[in-house]
Amino acid sequence: MAPMHIVVLAGGIGGARFLLGVRALARSTGAEVTAVVNVGDDVVLHGLRICPDLDSVMYTLGGGADEERGWGRADERWTVKEELAAYGAEPTWFGLGDRDVATHLVRTTMLDAGHPLSAVTEALCARWQPGVRLLPATDDRVETHVVVDAPGEGRGEQAIHFQEWWIRHRAALPARRFVFAGAEQAKPAAGVLDALARADAVLVAPSNPVVSIAPILAVSGLRDAVAASTAPVVGVSPIIGGAPVRGMADRCLAAVGVECSAAGVGRFYGARTGDRTAGNGDRTAGNGDRTASTGDRTASTGDRTASTGDRTASGAGAHTSTGGHSNTGVHSNTGAHGSDDLGGLLDGWLVDTADAPVSIPGVEVHDAPLWMTDETATVAIVRAALDLAGLRR
Amino acid sequence: MAPMHIVVLAGGIGGARFLLGVRALARSTGAEVTAVVNVGDDVVLHGLRICPDLDSVMYTLGGGADEERGWGRADERWTVKEELAAYGAEPTWFGLGDRDVATHLVRTTMLDAGHPLSAVTEALCARWQPGVRLLPATDDRVETHVVVDAPGEGRGEQAIHFQEWWIRHRAALPARRFVFAGAEQAKPAAGVLDALARADAVLVAPSNPVVSIAPILAVSGLRDAVAASTAPVVGVSPIIGGAPVRGMADRCLAAVGVECSAAGVGRFYGARTGDRTAGNGDRTAGNGDRTASTGDRTASTGDRTASTGDRTASGAGAHTSTGGHSNTGVHSNTGAHGSDDLGGLLDGWLVDTADAPVSIPGVEVHDAPLWMTDETATVAIVRAALDLAGLRR
Repeated sequence: MAPMHIVVLAGGIGGARFLLGVRALARSTGAEVTAVVNVGDDVVLHGLRICPDLDSVMYTLGGGADEERGWGRADERWTVKEELAAYGAEPTWFGLGDRDVATHLVRTTMLDAGHPLSAVTEALCARWQPGVRLLPATDDRVETHVVVDAPGEGRGEQAIHFQEWWIRHRAALPARRFVFAGAEQAKPAAGVLDALARADAVLVAPSNPVVSIAPILAVSGLRDAVAASTAPVVGVSPIIGGAPVRGMADRCLAAVGVECSAAGVGRFYGARTGDRTAGNGDRTAGNGDRTASTGDRTASTGDRTASTGDRTASGAGAHTSTGGHSNTGVHSNTGAHGSDDLGGLLDGWLVDTADAPVSIPGVEVHDAPLWMTDETATVAIVRAALDLAGLRR
Repeated sequence: MAPMHIVVLAGGIGGARFLLGVRALARSTGAEVTAVVNVGDDVVLHGLRICPDLDSVMYTLGGGADEERGWGRADERWTVKEELAAYGAEPTWFGLGDRDVATHLVRTTMLDAGHPLSAVTEALCARWQPGVRLLPATDDRVETHVVVDAPGEGRGEQAIHFQEWWIRHRAALPARRFVFAGAEQAKPAAGVLDALARADAVLVAPSNPVVSIAPILAVSGLRDAVAASTAPVVGVSPIIGGAPVRGMADRCLAAVGVECSAAGVGRFYGARTGDRTAGNGDRTAGNGDRTASTGDRTASTGDRTASTGDRTASGAGAHTSTGGHSNTGVHSNTGAHGSDDLGGLLDGWLVDTADAPVSIPGVEVHDAPLWMTDETATVAIVRAALDLAGLRR
């Protein structure tokens, strides 16, 4: 019998910590793990291609992360950053550590030489030995942009790179919506579709739903592959007791009009079709519908969102659930189908015990303690998620 | 009356130290200084455009150089280099300091954005305030390659980048010849021809004649502009008592069959035409002759010297003086003209007192103490060179 294969959709540090538990459990059961990681946060700064989420996962699983700071390398130094500032090189608000710079130099050099990001990631992981296979969601460029009010009254709106909004502005600028520039032209990275096809379980890590998980699913064909998977799809809530486990997910959820609660996020993801054995015909219908819903393109005045075909964050993969939350800022799908529409993501939803009971139409909801306080606690969460997926090991 | 304008042709650290003296003298006399700096040593490593000679001059004049080590930044750190090595990223033999990396990041980013190297250098100098105008010899790519024996007996020859020969092999691989790849297609950088046209004196710094000064003059049109200048051209010997002031110039001179002596280098540079008021017709003749002499292209088997039109180092600007040195490895000009041919460089040649007397046909030779032990000593050298140029201030 082939070993169990677990695919995890993951963002940065939340995904990384969840993956520590997945890896530990997999080691004890002989399972194989593939992490499909968000690249929407990626940014080119000072000519360097920076992949914050991939690096967070790689450093964390490789034992090189700064656990206290929550991002970047342990024992980091800042000489390069200081020198760049001495040159007046913008931007100065991004934390570019010396150790981290080396990763970006290797990555950028390989990308410039024509290697796809998936191959570059594999090469970097040859050093870090993360113990799970790390794949970027796509080898193409997908950039999460945030549409905000342009400075000055009545000046309309503009799009800024996610990192500028997240780090420079600490997510404090009210976001009108998120745009995943390039997502419609992007294809799943080499290995992603194969991993999903071979999956025995697809876990959605407790990552930011709006800017970590949604941009993964926005990649053309990726969400369809998840929807078409014969494996159960189980999500773990990143919200406990109405607050994000870490980070500023609440601000992202507010921007797309989703209540910051385990129930709100569960409805945001929505139920996958009840019949997982349904053929691709159904998925195609869902896909066509989704395309219609994303027909409302961003009309940004910013330079950075010029491309057509950008997707907006409005429900995972562009569907908005029909839950009771406000639609402010959401490009909602006003079609007739309900929360059990073909566009949903989940078969199961794991919420914290403090949040139970939660009811999501069409989704089986369990509860368990979800604080990832240490690896043992995280292993228990992963075990609960696999139980929910019907995979007891 | 316009201030005196001094143009200095310079390589790396030797040129930088000479320029400290030129700057000091210029400050006391109100003179303007333009340094035209070699870019043949430039190399792209880890995706970064590195300009060792420009940086040596910029850091030295800007007070940021490591004086003891003789290259790179003071108080340098090596975290990035250690991390690159941890990734197994080649090459590992190049000294890429953390502070230095920031310079290269700014430069590479600006070059990628389309700015010419001259503009990038000016931008970097906004921080360093070197007090003289720094110009690369060219905004185009000129790379000094070294043709060496291919590994394995009877395997012919191969070309390696100058940095690989100089740093990795410590110039210990016997060099057959030097090739300035790209020189014939290259044009003088913005500002170079104007600076030469306005010069009251052109000084050739005591830099490596073969791999610092020759690649400057190999840039198409640059040597002609020097030859056509109405200003006197005075060189300062980089050889004292038969040994290079610093560096491994002896190995470079040996490769092109030039005696490692003040006299040998003086003859290598050769005499400019005796009549500096001669019109361009004469220069054109000289140029035609030089082109013929460089018709013997390198037939390297290395990938890096594929371009046609590369120039070889055989006399400054491709003429070989008719002095008594061996022609081993030299693509010599076997034409009928003598050492006072139109292709020579110098009107005056300053040698160390220990080397006097030296006689170079057609060149006025003075002697003075040439050890640049401190700025005062260097100022005296510059003063002697300007005296020789007939500019007593």
